Amino acid sequence: MGDSPTDILWVLVSAILVALMQPGFTALEAGGTRTKNSISTAIKNMSDFLISFIVFVLFGASIMLGSSYFGLVGWQPNIFNSTTLSEVVLILFQAMFASTAVTIISGSIAERTKFSTYLIIAVIVSIFIYPIQAHWAWNTEGWLAQIGFIDFAGSTVVHSVGGWAALAAILIIGPRIGRFDEENRAFEHSNLAYSALGVFLIWIGWIGFNGGSVLALNETTALVILNTFIAGSTGGISGLIVSRILNGYYQITAILNGVLAGLVAITASANLTTPFEAIVIGVIGYFAYHLGVILLERYKVDDAIEAVPVHLFAGIAGTLAVPFVMNDIIFIEQLKTQVIGIITIGFFTFGISYILLKTINRFSKLRVTETSELIGLNISEHKSSTSMFDLANAMNSQAVSQDFSRRILVEPYTDASLLANYYNQVTEAFNKLDQEKELLLEETNRMANYDHLTGLAKRRLLVNELSRACIQSEQSPQNNAVLFIDLDGFKNVNDKYGHDGGDIILKVTAERILTNIRKSDLASRFGGDEFVVLLEDIQNDTQATIVADKIIKSLKEPVDLGNNTIGHIGASIGIRFIENNGTFSVEKILKEADQAMYEAKRRGKNQWVAY
Amino acid sequence: MGDSPTDILWVLVSAILVALMQPGFTALEAGGTRTKNSISTAIKNMSDFLISFIVFVLFGASIMLGSSYFGLVGWQPNIFNSTTLSEVVLILFQAMFASTAVTIISGSIAERTKFSTYLIIAVIVSIFIYPIQAHWAWNTEGWLAQIGFIDFAGSTVVHSVGGWAALAAILIIGPRIGRFDEENRAFEHSNLAYSALGVFLIWIGWIGFNGGSVLALNETTALVILNTFIAGSTGGISGLIVSRILNGYYQITAILNGVLAGLVAITASANLTTPFEAIVIGVIGYFAYHLGVILLERYKVDDAIEAVPVHLFAGIAGTLAVPFVMNDIIFIEQLKTQVIGIITIGFFTFGISYILLKTINRFSKLRVTETSELIGLNISEHKSSTSMFDLANAMNSQAVSQDFSRRILVEPYTDASLLANYYNQVTEAFNKLDQEKELLLEETNRMANYDHLTGLAKRRLLVNELSRACIQSEQSPQNNAVLFIDLDGFKNVNDKYGHDGGDIILKVTAERILTNIRKSDLASRFGGDEFVVLLEDIQNDTQATIVADKIIKSLKEPVDLGNNTIGHIGASIGIRFIENNGTFSVEKILKEADQAMYEAKRRGKNQWVAY
Amino acid sequence: MGDSPTDILWVLVSAILVALMQPGFTALEAGGTRTKNSISTAIKNMSDFLISFIVFVLFGASIMLGSSYFGLVGWQPNIFNSTTLSEVVLILFQAMFASTAVTIISGSIAERTKFSTYLIIAVIVSIFIYPIQAHWAWNTEGWLAQIGFIDFAGSTVVHSVGGWAALAAILIIGPRIGRFDEENRAFEHSNLAYSALGVFLIWIGWIGFNGGSVLALNETTALVILNTFIAGSTGGISGLIVSRILNGYYQITAILNGVLAGLVAITASANLTTPFEAIVIGVIGYFAYHLGVILLERYKVDDAIEAVPVHLFAGIAGTLAVPFVMNDIIFIEQLKTQVIGIITIGFFTFGISYILLKTINRFSKLRVTETSELIGLNISEHKSSTSMFDLANAMNSQAVSQDFSRRILVEPYTDASLLANYYNQVTEAFNKLDQEKELLLEETNRMANYDHLTGLAKRRLLVNELSRACIQSEQSPQNNAVLFIDLDGFKNVNDKYGHDGGDIILKVTAERILTNIRKSDLASRFGGDEFVVLLEDIQNDTQATIVADKIIKSLKEPVDLGNNTIGHIGASIGIRFIENNGTFSVEKILKEADQAMYEAKRRGKNQWVAY
Repeated sequence: MGDSPTDILWVLVSAILVALMQPGFTALEAGGTRTKNSISTAIKNMSDFLISFIVFVLFGASIMLGSSYFGLVGWQPNIFNSTTLSEVVLILFQAMFASTAVTIISGSIAERTKFSTYLIIAVIVSIFIYPIQAHWAWNTEGWLAQIGFIDFAGSTVVHSVGGWAALAAILIIGPRIGRFDEENRAFEHSNLAYSALGVFLIWIGWIGFNGGSVLALNETTALVILNTFIAGSTGGISGLIVSRILNGYYQITAILNGVLAGLVAITASANLTTPFEAIVIGVIGYFAYHLGVILLERYKVDDAIEAVPVHLFAGIAGTLAVPFVMNDIIFIEQLKTQVIGIITIGFFTFGISYILLKTINRFSKLRVTETSELIGLNISEHKSSTSMFDLANAMNSQAVSQDFSRRILVEPYTDASLLANYYNQVTEAFNKLDQEKELLLEETNRMANYDHLTGLAKRRLLVNELSRACIQSEQSPQNNAVLFIDLDGFKNVNDKYGHDGGDIILKVTAERILTNIRKSDLASRFGGDEFVVLLEDIQNDTQATIVADKIIKSLKEPVDLGNNTIGHIGASIGIRFIENNGTFSVEKILKEADQAMYEAKRRGKNQWVAY
Repeated sequence: MGDSPTDILWVLVSAILVALMQPGFTALEAGGTRTKNSISTAIKNMSDFLISFIVFVLFGASIMLGSSYFGLVGWQPNIFNSTTLSEVVLILFQAMFASTAVTIISGSIAERTKFSTYLIIAVIVSIFIYPIQAHWAWNTEGWLAQIGFIDFAGSTVVHSVGGWAALAAILIIGPRIGRFDEENRAFEHSNLAYSALGVFLIWIGWIGFNGGSVLALNETTALVILNTFIAGSTGGISGLIVSRILNGYYQITAILNGVLAGLVAITASANLTTPFEAIVIGVIGYFAYHLGVILLERYKVDDAIEAVPVHLFAGIAGTLAVPFVMNDIIFIEQLKTQVIGIITIGFFTFGISYILLKTINRFSKLRVTETSELIGLNISEHKSSTSMFDLANAMNSQAVSQDFSRRILVEPYTDASLLANYYNQVTEAFNKLDQEKELLLEETNRMANYDHLTGLAKRRLLVNELSRACIQSEQSPQNNAVLFIDLDGFKNVNDKYGHDGGDIILKVTAERILTNIRKSDLASRFGGDEFVVLLEDIQNDTQATIVADKIIKSLKEPVDLGNNTIGHIGASIGIRFIENNGTFSVEKILKEADQAMYEAKRRGKNQWVAY
Repeated sequence: MGDSPTDILWVLVSAILVALMQPGFTALEAGGTRTKNSISTAIKNMSDFLISFIVFVLFGASIMLGSSYFGLVGWQPNIFNSTTLSEVVLILFQAMFASTAVTIISGSIAERTKFSTYLIIAVIVSIFIYPIQAHWAWNTEGWLAQIGFIDFAGSTVVHSVGGWAALAAILIIGPRIGRFDEENRAFEHSNLAYSALGVFLIWIGWIGFNGGSVLALNETTALVILNTFIAGSTGGISGLIVSRILNGYYQITAILNGVLAGLVAITASANLTTPFEAIVIGVIGYFAYHLGVILLERYKVDDAIEAVPVHLFAGIAGTLAVPFVMNDIIFIEQLKTQVIGIITIGFFTFGISYILLKTINRFSKLRVTETSELIGLNISEHKSSTSMFDLANAMNSQAVSQDFSRRILVEPYTDASLLANYYNQVTEAFNKLDQEKELLLEETNRMANYDHLTGLAKRRLLVNELSRACIQSEQSPQNNAVLFIDLDGFKNVNDKYGHDGGDIILKVTAERILTNIRKSDLASRFGGDEFVVLLEDIQNDTQATIVADKIIKSLKEPVDLGNNTIGHIGASIGIRFIENNGTFSVEKILKEADQAMYEAKRRGKNQWVAY
């Protein structure tokens, strides 16, 4: 690091700027995932930072920055207790780099991965993977540094490493449910305006990422910053133009990820390129990203926010671009070295990640259950419920129980409460309409089955009920009886007192019959002045004759026809007792009751005869 | 402050970083409160900054930084006009600290406090409370500084002070409606992904908060920053682990507030602890916060975003931790001093805040009305309406008026408009179904009450109406009359021309009757060839006889039975006039009309007889 | 620029802070526009930065900073290749200024402007307008600089220029649909809490904007920063107080834009004013903004986020304030110079913008279509669909097709899916209720039109159908026939076997008639034992006689009356053939069929007679 206080301050400021990439990634990824997962995504970004920072400072920094063992791995026992300003600033700066590599992964595997998986990955990457390969490339004693591998600020060392680990993870974890149900299916993004803020914050952080990597404030720093702005711009502009040409509209993710891809690509050579070359490298970064998107789609590898295309593909492209901008006579040599660096770091990172995650996955699934994924990780992993979700649950439970009688209550004056009010209103209207329909049905039924004048059942209903009773008594034996009642002398009353008198007689008869039978019995006006009573589930025939006696007695009573007129009338009843076994014909039963009634009439009326 | 330009620049950068805590708190608090209050919360964060900055620069800075009077209060008349770089930077740096103390309060009292209350609190804290106690602890002449109280960057001086004031305020203002209806009830958070961004921004600001407090760029600065990152991490990791163990899931608020609690705790001793001690202090900060949450819940004190547990509880813990990390032989002495500082500042801050707010609350409530709280402060305090709210209002007003005939219109292509379209659709479907139901009801009614052939009322309806008219005339006297019409010679026509002829006669009779009575009268087919007309509210019996005359005359006219056949028929009418007093029997009235009709028949037909 | 490394580092940090204004504007504008446009607004902020940065660095910087030609325009061919630290930092710093001017415009024209329009404006402003007038005012050789125009950090050069260009654009593009349908109509803001964050970020950026404009770190820098904080505060406080007084509530946009207006106003003189004067200038800035809002409203000029009042009006006010704070004897002279600067830059900027945009608008509309505007630019310009929008489309398509039989499926566990579930539930309930209503209607219809006993049509239905058939045959000729069937000897059966026997006969008769006619024919029970069959669309009268023969034959068959009793019965049929021309009377036809039937009876029964 540069010796002057200004140099140190610049690197410190740069470290703080790189820290700004963390809220940037949080906004980018939370905005780019579905609402049901966005909080989960944000808290993962926070948590992997917590863990990777501590782990890197405690262990990773020693491995990366300490004295080298064979150029493969370093160690410096007391690094955590470093107290000189520049030492600590360097550790901080590097810790932010390690955290950046870790946080790249969180976006790729978002929306279906267990929270604990993130924590495991954060530990693995910041304790093993990042420090070791960074030791290779950036520790002056590292073997890649020794053979001349050039990666200025980490196109490969930070970004591709994050990308390789992410690729290993998404291959093991698999695509989100429904992701490849149709081609190029894009899930809803919770808030791309939030993602745009995130990209700006990441970009500003990148000024520290690249600018601080000079480890001093000098002409190179200025060039690096200028190149970083330029490549981000041309990466984004490429996305803007290409998506317009290919899709017919300006695709937001292409623009946002284009900026990031341009930034990733310039990172390897920001201190070497001219601004004009930076323009080209930004464009190359975009196309590398674009290629990555196509390949992942083709091979059905699901990366929730396209972090692999951005960080791995553009990272490789940027690292490969180094020899081109070096204007060096050893171009081929340098290209070979770059390829060696890319392959060994890729092999190491992907290999370790894949083996470890695959092993862990055997014992404890890295992925949440299907139900949890459908519900969304906000709720399934963090119980971060919403009124809307509560409402959905309440509505579902009503739908399952089919009991819509209670109102659903939720937090007032929320969108959910609006919907709940509405739901309650509609439910009530339905209930009302349903009741009216029931009444209407009842009224229609009444008109079809009950006699206007007397309110007794019509013949039709009697026949149905008798039929039902017969069928029922075949299944669970019971005794029934039919009383066939015919008024004696009704014709006379009718002739004498007119319709009115007749109607009164009929009504009174109905009332008197009803008072002498049980609620469960059915009295019907069978026609004219004929009434039929169905006595169901009686003990024996005597019970039927008792009822007949009572009816006859009550019908003998005079009837006040109004106007001081008194009508006298009686009734003849035919009883048809139906025992609890055997099959019966309804028609026959009624016929026989009728015959018994005629017999009663024949014997002098005002009496009953059993068939 | 350090003399070198780099030192000054570092403190300036730190002041700017501390300013970043303001948007951080805005995002944290707006995301942590309910959607209906989130804008209100954000604008309060903005407004208390506006006021506390101006007030502190104008007055507070002089009180805090000026020459001391007895170690209790300072004054420097022209401080606002300071012009040397380091002086101004120090004032700016301190102004950001004062604003931070103020903004802590806004979160605690969110969701039920008047906007003006915030402004009052901002003034009180930044003019009185913050500067005076900061003078005690941080002005070299301050009495707490004199006795050796150590609070490096303000665990007590900034954070606990904010926490004490917040505690006083929430005790007076009381809990949000429904907060303690059930245990550990958590209200919905509008957007915790936004809160996560906020915590990151606050953390980055904290690098300036603590790092800048060194007032120079040197080894200590580096240590402070490292410790600040470490304690934030271990605080957050504690929340992550503890919530997983206690609740079974990774609680987001525990993680986010754990980070902040770790940061608050390290603030008192960030320049004294080793990184290993910082790990422990971050954990202690979390547990102090956790204790605070439990205590507030137990005593039903409602802190909307748990600012009191974070800033007061972790602040006290951090201040108490100082003697432990000093490795000093005067441990007990230092602990005593720390306790004295905590207690006096706490007593002072809580006391002043409580007394002033309690007094103000007497004259003007600090809290909004219950209705305003339920509606949400976005709308009730700032009229920041939404389409959803407008829709809710429109729907409620339809529900109240029960008038669903008009469509509700809202901003097109919003979520609200979607719901509105839907509502309109359902409402229309309901209206349609309702109309059909009415038609069905009408049809059923028609079938029950009106004669098929003639379209006149059935006997049942006539009886009902007559009954109603009688009852009505008892209450408000009116004269009514009943005409009992029997066709003369109908049987002959029927026999001669068959059913068809008879039917035609009956239809024509009905038509002719209807043309001779008023709309308000009721004509019924009483049975066979009998018709009964109810003349309601007539002046005298003559009016009834005139109608009878007209009907008789019209019924004498020949009837075209088709097929060149002409039917001749007449009618006899019995009139029963019903005077406007007395009680009547419907049956008797009809009987008497019938008798009068028979008398008319007897007298030679084709005439009327009044009873 | 100052020579010391600290000076350069400060300007570099300032440039990075100014970059923070970009995410600030993104959040401000995305939060201030409607949800359906917010993503579009954010991505425009991103895209205009991409373009303006590249274009300014490639061309604009040379025009602005290069050697002057007549004080009007500069050029420095190789500026893009500058490599000294301070040169590059200055270019970066200026590039951020140019991008700020550009991004101001994006807010004004938001919510109805084509994406490509933004790109065009970004190019025009950053290549022509900004560099040329900045050359005038800020290049030491520029003509405005030469005559003593003072605009410290760009109240006019940056902010008013953005405002003028925005004004030209909104005059050409026109107001958003519905904006002036009612007075002071405010559209919904997607998220003002996000806007508050944006204002904080912009403010922090402004510390670099103004503080960095000193181009060194010294006493002036401190004063500038202090003044910048002060004026922002008093601008915001003015908005807070004024809106409370005028509207009765604390208006959020007044507070947020008040801060920005205060910042714009102080920008011209932040290095000249005392802190006390800065207080006043902040207030003046607010009132200039307020005036702008009133004027735009009066003249129905629609600025989506009030950027013109903030940047143009407060910019002019701030520039005019310069002479007042200079305490100079040449006050009038300076005021004149300021006015000249304001007018010439305004004229130049507005003029160029207006002419270019007006010309472009001729060939390709700057504005989106009305439909696109209503749908919202997120979807219409960027295909950034949401589940809610998909649901709305699915619901609309069901509404149009009136086919509600299929369930709508959307992404599970989203708000949209909640609504979709609900919609599906209600639709199903409706369908069920509708079916029940249909059944009820059918039942009512059946009761009204069909005979209980036999299930045949009632006379009423027969008459209606016959009438319909007659009318139909007038329009499209067809032959019909009526068979009038009367049972022979029914009275005997009835008398002998009672009602039961009669009913069985009638039922069997109905069944037998039905088996002998086509489905399309109508059989009715005309009354008692009379049946009428309508044979529709037959070929000739023979076809009717064949049917009559078959019926007579089938009715001769004995009928099992139960109880071992056999009934014998026959039928007489009157056939009335109705040829396919001429008008018919339904009554007459039936009468004639009746007559034919009587003739058949007369001829000895059990036969048919054609009329």
